[in-house]
Amino acid sequence: MIIIGEKINSTIKSVKEAIESYDDKLIKELAVKQGDAGAAFIDVNAGMFYDDEPKRLEWLVNTVQEVTSTPLSIDSPNPKALLFALKANKNKKPIINSITAEKERYSAVMPLAVEYNTGIIALCMDDSGMPETVEDRVKIAQGLIENLTAEGIPLNDIYIDPMVRPIGTGSHYGKVVFDTIRIIKTQYPKVHITCGLSNISFGLPGRKLLNQTFLIAALAFGLDSAILDPLDKKLMSSLFAAEAILGVDDYCMNYIEKFREDELEF
Amino acid sequence: MIIIGEKINSTIKSVKEAIESYDDKLIKELAVKQGDAGAAFIDVNAGMFYDDEPKRLEWLVNTVQEVTSTPLSIDSPNPKALLFALKANKNKKPIINSITAEKERYSAVMPLAVEYNTGIIALCMDDSGMPETVEDRVKIAQGLIENLTAEGIPLNDIYIDPMVRPIGTGSHYGKVVFDTIRIIKTQYPKVHITCGLSNISFGLPGRKLLNQTFLIAALAFGLDSAILDPLDKKLMSSLFAAEAILGVDDYCMNYIEKFREDELEF
Repeated sequence: MIIIGEKINSTIKSVKEAIESYDDKLIKELAVKQGDAGAAFIDVNAGMFYDDEPKRLEWLVNTVQEVTSTPLSIDSPNPKALLFALKANKNKKPIINSITAEKERYSAVMPLAVEYNTGIIALCMDDSGMPETVEDRVKIAQGLIENLTAEGIPLNDIYIDPMVRPIGTGSHYGKVVFDTIRIIKTQYPKVHITCGLSNISFGLPGRKLLNQTFLIAALAFGLDSAILDPLDKKLMSSLFAAEAILGVDDYCMNYIEKFREDELEF
Repeated sequence: MIIIGEKINSTIKSVKEAIESYDDKLIKELAVKQGDAGAAFIDVNAGMFYDDEPKRLEWLVNTVQEVTSTPLSIDSPNPKALLFALKANKNKKPIINSITAEKERYSAVMPLAVEYNTGIIALCMDDSGMPETVEDRVKIAQGLIENLTAEGIPLNDIYIDPMVRPIGTGSHYGKVVFDTIRIIKTQYPKVHITCGLSNISFGLPGRKLLNQTFLIAALAFGLDSAILDPLDKKLMSSLFAAEAILGVDDYCMNYIEKFREDELEF
C-alpha cells in the first residue's frame, strides 16, 4: 500500500496560516510525523494561494525536505507551481498530483513529468467533466495510460485516480469506483490505483466509518495506494487489518507488530 | 444481508448452563434481542450435550418460539437432533445448519431438508476433509448445489459456506474465501453465500478488528449472509457502512437511520 500523506494541504486552516506566515514548525512536524506513520509520499499543496502559489509551493518543498527524505507528492493543477516545486525538489522521485485528460492541462503537465522523471497521478476526467459511468472512467484511464506510456513514462509510475463521487448523491457511486478499479487493475496490473477517501462520504453522517469501510472494500478490488491521513489511527488500523485479510501482509507480521506496538485502534 | 444470530450456542458457557438447567430466561432474552437487532434467523445449538442433544435442541426450539416468530437456524450435524427440532418447529421456514458433501452426513440430512421444506447451509467439505484450494471449494459447492436442487430444493434456499481457515495459519486463506465467494456467486447468483466470521482471526491478536474487516471485504465479493453476533454494535456498524458503500442500501437510508438512532459505533 502506497500511502500519500495528505496533511500538508492549504485547505486546512492551520496549514494555510503556517504557509501564509512562512512558519515552518507545523509543516516540518506534519512531514516527519506522516513519514514515521508510513507515508511513502508527503503531499504538499499551496493551492489556496492564488496569487503566488509557485513561490509558496516551492517554500513547502524546501521546508519539508529539510527534515525528511520521504519523496514528495507535488499537488497542484498549475504548471508553473509544479515547475517551481520540481526545480526545488531534492528528495527521490516525486509524484505530480495531478494530470487529467483535459487537453490544456494534459499538454502543460505531461512534459514536466517526462522532464523531471516523476510519478504521476492521473485523474479519470476530461474536457467533458467528471465521468458518470464505469465505462467512461475506464476509457479515460486507458487513454491516459496509453498516452503517458507513449511519452516514456513507465506503467508503475502512473497512479490512476478513478474519481470518487459521494454515495449520498447516488447509491451506486461506490460500486462505480470498485468496478473501475477492478477493470483497470486487470488490464494494467503494473499501474497503481489511488484515490482520496473522504469524497465518498460527503454530505453523510458518520463519515469516518464510511471512509474506513470504503478503504477496505477498495483495497479488496485492487486499490494499492491512497491519499489519506496516516495519523488517523483508526483508518490506519483498518488498512493494516485489510492487508492481513487480503493476504498482502505475509504471516500477518505487520498487523501483529502494530498490535504489539499498541498502534491498533478499533 | 441475511443475518443468522449466533448467540444461542452451547459452546458459550452461560448458554450451556441455561440449557443444562432448562432455564429459559437467558435463551428468550437472546432470542428477542437478536431478532430486534436484525437477525433473520436465530441459530440454536445444543451440540455440547452429547448424550441428549435431540431433547435439548427441541427444548431450545420450543423456548425460542415462545417469544419470537423469527425463523430458526437449527444447528447440528446430528440427524436425530435435527429431526426433533424440525418436528417442534412452528415458526416460518427454518434453515438447517448444516449439511456437507460427506456421504454419510449428506444422505442423513438431505431428506430432512426436503421433507420439512427448509433452507440449508451447505459447507464446502467432503470426506477428504476441509479443502485447501479455491478450486476444491468450488467443486464441492457445485456438487452440493447440483445435488440439492436435483432433490427439489430451490437455489435461494441454499446457503453455501466456503469454510474459512485462519489467516494466522496461511496468509492466503482470506483470498481463498473471497475468490470462492466470487466464483460461486457468479455461477449461481440466486444461491446465498454465508459464513462464520471468527475463524478467520483465530490465533491472532485484535480479532474483532480482523473480523469486522473480513466481513466488509467478504460483502464486497458477494457474501450475502453471515453467522454473527447481531448485538456486537461495532460489527453491525461495519455491516451497515459496507451496505451503504456497496450500493445495496438505497439512498443510504438504513445507514442514516442507524446513525440517527445512535446505533453506530466506530
